[in-house]
Amino acid sequence: MREVTIGLLGCGTVGGGLVQLIEREHERIRTRDGIDLRIRRILVRDLARERPGVDRARLTTNAIEVIDDCDLVVEVIGGVHSAGAYVRRALRSGRDVVTANKALLADSGRALFDLAAQSGARIGFEASVCGGIPIIRAIERGLAGDSIESISGILNGTCNYVLTRMEESGCDFAAALRLAQARGFAEADPELDISGADALQKLQILSELAFGPVHQTACAHGIADITTSEIEQARSRRCVVRHAANARRIPGGVELRVERRELPESHPFASVRDENNAVIVRAKAVGEVQFVGKGAGSFPTAAAVLSDVLEMSRPVATHVRI
Amino acid sequence: MREVTIGLLGCGTVGGGLVQLIEREHERIRTRDGIDLRIRRILVRDLARERPGVDRARLTTNAIEVIDDCDLVVEVIGGVHSAGAYVRRALRSGRDVVTANKALLADSGRALFDLAAQSGARIGFEASVCGGIPIIRAIERGLAGDSIESISGILNGTCNYVLTRMEESGCDFAAALRLAQARGFAEADPELDISGADALQKLQILSELAFGPVHQTACAHGIADITTSEIEQARSRRCVVRHAANARRIPGGVELRVERRELPESHPFASVRDENNAVIVRAKAVGEVQFVGKGAGSFPTAAAVLSDVLEMSRPVATHVRI
Repeated sequence: MREVTIGLLGCGTVGGGLVQLIEREHERIRTRDGIDLRIRRILVRDLARERPGVDRARLTTNAIEVIDDCDLVVEVIGGVHSAGAYVRRALRSGRDVVTANKALLADSGRALFDLAAQSGARIGFEASVCGGIPIIRAIERGLAGDSIESISGILNGTCNYVLTRMEESGCDFAAALRLAQARGFAEADPELDISGADALQKLQILSELAFGPVHQTACAHGIADITTSEIEQARSRRCVVRHAANARRIPGGVELRVERRELPESHPFASVRDENNAVIVRAKAVGEVQFVGKGAGSFPTAAAVLSDVLEMSRPVATHVRI
Repeated sequence: MREVTIGLLGCGTVGGGLVQLIEREHERIRTRDGIDLRIRRILVRDLARERPGVDRARLTTNAIEVIDDCDLVVEVIGGVHSAGAYVRRALRSGRDVVTANKALLADSGRALFDLAAQSGARIGFEASVCGGIPIIRAIERGLAGDSIESISGILNGTCNYVLTRMEESGCDFAAALRLAQARGFAEADPELDISGADALQKLQILSELAFGPVHQTACAHGIADITTSEIEQARSRRCVVRHAANARRIPGGVELRVERRELPESHPFASVRDENNAVIVRAKAVGEVQFVGKGAGSFPTAAAVLSDVLEMSRPVATHVRI
């Protein structure tokens, strides 16, 4: 049995989900993978807050204690500044880091990967894009033998929830957004979702994976100005409106676009409803491969974090087997 | 630069595709992964046959020469007997094996994995199920942190092609099957496809990955007795007929079923047409994740083989990065 201790930075939606998920899957992972996962310390801002199912004795407000006393760091606090400082400290000490933080990767991903390379540490970021869909592994490994030509996606669950709510119930944008917020899909600042900035960050990460460090031209349009009549008119043409992200090769680099698009009802994105995400990868040899699943939420994202934790916890010699 | 030599067993549809794909992607892989892939020898039955783009000097009819003089063996001859003997020889010598051979894995997968474990060799089998869809990695790694509850799929492209042809053009089963054969989708013996045996083999592999070595109860029904009126009646109820595979936990093990099902037009499988494959994995934390793509064909399958070759060729310390 291999004991692996985790230093958990953050115990909000994703962090709290991870604590519960590890407790639930602990025995299965011991039996199947021979790994005994232990969350040693948990960084929180407020020690007094009620956190059902979380052992209070592990909570601390001191990030250094968490980072310096574990095998592997999980960063799920979000944001760029503190999170970046913590991740750099962990990587410098040679500790592997698993993060769900797309903003941090979009902001300073390359510098972090360079730092990791210097100390021999790894960075797992499956959870940073499309939560429950294992799209990072699919692009990086599953399609490693192929030349990717384009990536399209519905990358923001809040926008998709808003658009499909308006489509189904006929309500207006503001009412649909309130529903998304009530169901807990929207980011703390919903502007990031509805402006297209969140989808663009995810698209940047997928694009770097697929096309390498080439020049990116980017533009993002949001959904805040959408009207019920725009959606009705699309429907009268047997179309739907979706907030689509697209990355494709152009001379000299890659073009990234995030924008509303009117798509025929037969388009694969038309059947992607509510808070679901979807990605279509087009590659030379395999043609089109589609992925659909929950793009956010406590447990789907926590499951993606845990898949990276397990990948890093396995002895290097082990391999997939049936 | 790391030179990796491949011993290629078989140069038919998949093997020939792999030779072309490696030639096309060689420079990209050198630059990006630092791996110089070389196909050293190729086992064929008939040295005289025309093989455009294949260097004749590398062909041989002697399997031992191919297996004993390479870093890694790729087996794409299919069948159980010779292929099994070659794979066992490679594994005993400690060489990693990449195979697209679902029949071999369904027949003697566990024994082969035990043999591999003894010599420290690895077996890559992404290409054995759903060609271009990276479903093996998704189940084994992407969803490693989650408990899988069920797997559903359209796992045989020939059956799906036949059913969607009948649906669209109104032709009968025999005519649709001839079309599938003319387009090269059907197995050499189409009985394996249309009886459901091929889909069941793939479902067995996915089920062992997802649920481990538990007791499997299996039944497979084919599509040979389907009539045009069955499809028309389904349509009159706004439904479609699909050949669906399903694996789910039952008390004491797992139940595998392959059968025709009438599904509503809104079901994700209804939009899966022609030779495409689809898999829906339902897991406790992530909910439903859908995968759709080409399940067969020379290049999609060759790309899956190459993804395994690359995974095995990487120095163990390297990791995913952006």
